[in-house]
Amino acid sequence: MATVTIWNEYRHERENDEVAAVYPDGIHATIADFLEGDHQVITATLDEPKHGLTSDVLEETDVLLWWGHTAHDEVEDEIVDRVQERVLEGMGLLVLHSGHYSKIFKRLMGTTCSLQWREDDGLERLWVVDPGHPIADGLDECIELPETEMYGEPFDVPEPDRLVFTSWFEGGEVFRSGCCYRRGSGRIFYFRPGHETIPIYENEDVQRVIRNAVEWATPTEGAPRTFGERD
Amino acid sequence: MATVTIWNEYRHERENDEVAAVYPDGIHATIADFLEGDHQVITATLDEPKHGLTSDVLEETDVLLWWGHTAHDEVEDEIVDRVQERVLEGMGLLVLHSGHYSKIFKRLMGTTCSLQWREDDGLERLWVVDPGHPIADGLDECIELPETEMYGEPFDVPEPDRLVFTSWFEGGEVFRSGCCYRRGSGRIFYFRPGHETIPIYENEDVQRVIRNAVEWATPTEGAPRTFGERD
Amino acid sequence: MATVTIWNEYRHERENDEVAAVYPDGIHATIADFLEGDHQVITATLDEPKHGLTSDVLEETDVLLWWGHTAHDEVEDEIVDRVQERVLEGMGLLVLHSGHYSKIFKRLMGTTCSLQWREDDGLERLWVVDPGHPIADGLDECIELPETEMYGEPFDVPEPDRLVFTSWFEGGEVFRSGCCYRRGSGRIFYFRPGHETIPIYENEDVQRVIRNAVEWATPTEGAPRTFGERD
Amino acid sequence: MATVTIWNEYRHERENDEVAAVYPDGIHATIADFLEGDHQVITATLDEPKHGLTSDVLEETDVLLWWGHTAHDEVEDEIVDRVQERVLEGMGLLVLHSGHYSKIFKRLMGTTCSLQWREDDGLERLWVVDPGHPIADGLDECIELPETEMYGEPFDVPEPDRLVFTSWFEGGEVFRSGCCYRRGSGRIFYFRPGHETIPIYENEDVQRVIRNAVEWATPTEGAPRTFGERD
Repeated sequence: MATVTIWNEYRHERENDEVAAVYPDGIHATIADFLEGDHQVITATLDEPKHGLTSDVLEETDVLLWWGHTAHDEVEDEIVDRVQERVLEGMGLLVLHSGHYSKIFKRLMGTTCSLQWREDDGLERLWVVDPGHPIADGLDECIELPETEMYGEPFDVPEPDRLVFTSWFEGGEVFRSGCCYRRGSGRIFYFRPGHETIPIYENEDVQRVIRNAVEWATPTEGAPRTFGERD
Repeated sequence: MATVTIWNEYRHERENDEVAAVYPDGIHATIADFLEGDHQVITATLDEPKHGLTSDVLEETDVLLWWGHTAHDEVEDEIVDRVQERVLEGMGLLVLHSGHYSKIFKRLMGTTCSLQWREDDGLERLWVVDPGHPIADGLDECIELPETEMYGEPFDVPEPDRLVFTSWFEGGEVFRSGCCYRRGSGRIFYFRPGHETIPIYENEDVQRVIRNAVEWATPTEGAPRTFGERD
Repeated sequence: MATVTIWNEYRHERENDEVAAVYPDGIHATIADFLEGDHQVITATLDEPKHGLTSDVLEETDVLLWWGHTAHDEVEDEIVDRVQERVLEGMGLLVLHSGHYSKIFKRLMGTTCSLQWREDDGLERLWVVDPGHPIADGLDECIELPETEMYGEPFDVPEPDRLVFTSWFEGGEVFRSGCCYRRGSGRIFYFRPGHETIPIYENEDVQRVIRNAVEWATPTEGAPRTFGERD
Repeated sequence: MATVTIWNEYRHERENDEVAAVYPDGIHATIADFLEGDHQVITATLDEPKHGLTSDVLEETDVLLWWGHTAHDEVEDEIVDRVQERVLEGMGLLVLHSGHYSKIFKRLMGTTCSLQWREDDGLERLWVVDPGHPIADGLDECIELPETEMYGEPFDVPEPDRLVFTSWFEGGEVFRSGCCYRRGSGRIFYFRPGHETIPIYENEDVQRVIRNAVEWATPTEGAPRTFGERD
């Protein structure tokens, strides 16, 4: 049982009726629902003091989930610094959907994290390209999402350490939808699905991937990270 | 100007009218056509003595292209040994289409190199997922092939050092269609397009990729590879 | 608790008094000693029928350890085929010391796995270059081995997915001593220490690394690996 | 012939007699000396307006070399932004010695880039661990530097795409001294040697590596990097 903190921008759901209809209590609440029981779950949102990510919360967090979309720039640099520090120390980080453009993901990748996109609500298939990966446990050969926003290549990220999913979109595009990285001692997983106007996080396979990814990203022990001057 | 040897199984073209109609002089001849001028081109086929890959030919080859399909097992292990040795010494290797199942590719990868496939002649789009790669030079955002055999994931190869292309297939599948590896001093590129009943190698973008890949795979100088007991 | 099979060539220990003095019951017995209790341990040696690696043994093995030195060529190809198949299906493989030259390691790497070496019994320090890796759990910043055979670069293997240890040798050389790979669903770890005339496998840190690596290499569940023709 | 811009902090050389004795005209001038002739060379230093890195200079630069030590924090974020942008567009970047702690390197890596160090002026050997790499062209199996500052592991950087050199230090440490990365279309090479009180950049092998790395990092053509909304 890990301590999982779900961070959500939580603006759309309060300001847009279409989104509120899908996620009345916020995307974080929907995700919390299927992680609770297995994990100690904390939720945190942009408009709380320190965005809900106090030093205490970050200190006890094993895996942080990040969903943001319209207000990436409102996240304070000081909080981003602290999240980065915690990832390098070993905290897992799951970056969801439009979180690709968050300060923390761009900070950890060193690139723009740009991509192509289109709101078209067509069919998406996330193919498992690495069936041996524990994040794919329990899936079939692909996940089918009957309607999703399209994200297309190129995706401006460093070559993933391990690519788990590649998406096929009905409209003709592909996307590297499940990308694993390690930075310092922390495991990072980018997972594409998750548009705010579609109940993606109620899909059982999507939930399974997030559950698997939480397990995968939970810190393991290693050797000391000692830096600085030596005798 | 490199010395490029194009190896082709060259059975289909002599035994099957449909294939002969597309590649009357063999796939190797079609590929030779667009590489000559830029490079010194040698062709070699299965039914020649030593499959046309004598020590002298391999010694002078900078980049070897490999196309095979129905007779992978007829390639002598002794020749595969020598090709592997030359790749480790620095010779480039371009493995085309059904060559994924060749002895030499399986030997260098250490895996089964299996995949899924279907003869369905639908549309394929090869998306450039690494636009910064020299193999993608001169391409647009994707290559469109109006009809191709489908290859689908999972593709049982080691994680590529660099993934250049990912294919989208009309039928609903995806595939890592352009995979870069290095083994020893040799550069290896697997490139998916190329079914024998469709004039894929007459497509200008496919030709461009092969030309780019020959440049990329041409040996560069390095430091000595010295092994064994030291004083 | 995993099922761990320790494969040892077991020739040196029966034929050479110096080795017999260090490992009277064979290297496999010494390794078995510190893994038993945590795991179900099987041992297997070259001169048993099928080298002790029957289909049944391989089928139930979660992690296979491999130590060989003077008789790599006597390992039957048919057994190597079956071990490779099991690794691709998910069985973990730990290749120890001179096992770098085993058929199975060369098969999975696709390279010569050559290196430089010298019998000089000087000091070795294995530095942890990836302190976040679970294989380094419980170690200090380096492992010190007061006397070891030297292995030096270049080491002709594919670039590791993850490099955990780099050795410093008193005589002036370095070596990538802890290399992680995945092939198919199987995790592979090459670990350098282990000369037959020095009680390396009685060193507590070496034992700790092997215990950690067994944990790391134990199969996890994934998605189906389905290949072949699709409808 | 590439356009190479050598950026140097250029404080030590003006403020410290010991450094001035080694590099009277600045480290940049010494490096410029051995690159001129082969390349169009520009030099730029911290105390120039915009640190000498105007938009025009960056626009025409093919490969940027970076040396800094005591004043990393004085580099304006706006300039760092622009250098990062140019790297992602394809400009090569060579980060030298204490430049590991520069804003631009930390920005592109996403980690602290911390390490261990000691001023002890002992012997360093940079072993070529990837003899097939063009950056190693013309070298012997290792570079010997009779006295250098020590840098030791762990080095908090992402796993390199390709590791070219590993250093052995007389005092007992190792270090990944030649690390290749790609970010966006840009090639990045970190190269360890270079303390300011030792004439490292007058060593012929060090010069050879820098010349090779400039060649390797020179931009090549690729496909368009197009991001944003699609029709």
